[in-house]
Amino acid sequence: MDQRLSVITLGVGDLARARRFYEEGLGWQVGMAVTGEVVFFQLNGLILSLYRRADLAKDAGVPDPGSGFAGIALAHNVAIEADVDRVIGEAERAGGQVVKPACKAEWGGYSGYFADPDGHLWEVAHNPHFPIDDQGNTWLG
Amino acid sequence: MDQRLSVITLGVGDLARARRFYEEGLGWQVGMAVTGEVVFFQLNGLILSLYRRADLAKDAGVPDPGSGFAGIALAHNVAIEADVDRVIGEAERAGGQVVKPACKAEWGGYSGYFADPDGHLWEVAHNPHFPIDDQGNTWLG
Repeated sequence: MDQRLSVITLGVGDLARARRFYEEGLGWQVGMAVTGEVVFFQLNGLILSLYRRADLAKDAGVPDPGSGFAGIALAHNVAIEADVDRVIGEAERAGGQVVKPACKAEWGGYSGYFADPDGHLWEVAHNPHFPIDDQGNTWLG
Repeated sequence: MDQRLSVITLGVGDLARARRFYEEGLGWQVGMAVTGEVVFFQLNGLILSLYRRADLAKDAGVPDPGSGFAGIALAHNVAIEADVDRVIGEAERAGGQVVKPACKAEWGGYSGYFADPDGHLWEVAHNPHFPIDDQGNTWLG
């Protein structure tokens, strides 16, 4: 299996609300959508998809119920510390919940976390050890 | 907030077991690791990180307990249908659980799902609508 991530699908309770958060709130451009069914955003060489949680469980063939910490976190890295506060502020104004205000991290960076309207966790981080290139790709230093 | 995913962190119950699954089982190359703490794999322009689930919850400032469907799925797309079966076979031999054997999808592709030892869901898909480039990046058609 090659070291590749192609799509990440976030299961959501209300597709219109989730789309509004990412599109209007965070200012992301929808790349493709089937109204009422699925919304795709083109990220840096991979796709982020919003899909109804119940439909995702059904597609994967697993029971839908689940609660609490999902055991997974996404991270959006930025070039400078000030951008961490700026992005977390954007997410909060868009209706996200700041679950951890940004602070200095013991690994030498600066980061905080917000949760999207469905509770999906996004860390926003400045990590001086992981360079970001012009295409928005992040690399192990 | 730019449309960028930099790092995805999988919370794991047993770091050594999770590393074995990805490194020895799936044949992935570790890019950086701190023994007993964290393992990083360089993917296509983003980083996949294995980190203890309890530590991830603590880092995000959320309560650890959680159970059932996490409401999120990763996808690894491949160029041809036969590779879907091959990759799911690799994951099964590595100790993953096939939660949905590969089958034709209504959207015109072919896909199945496996769960890693911590239950993180990976779809393995051939999607003729989403081209994969030479760098392993996936694009909305």
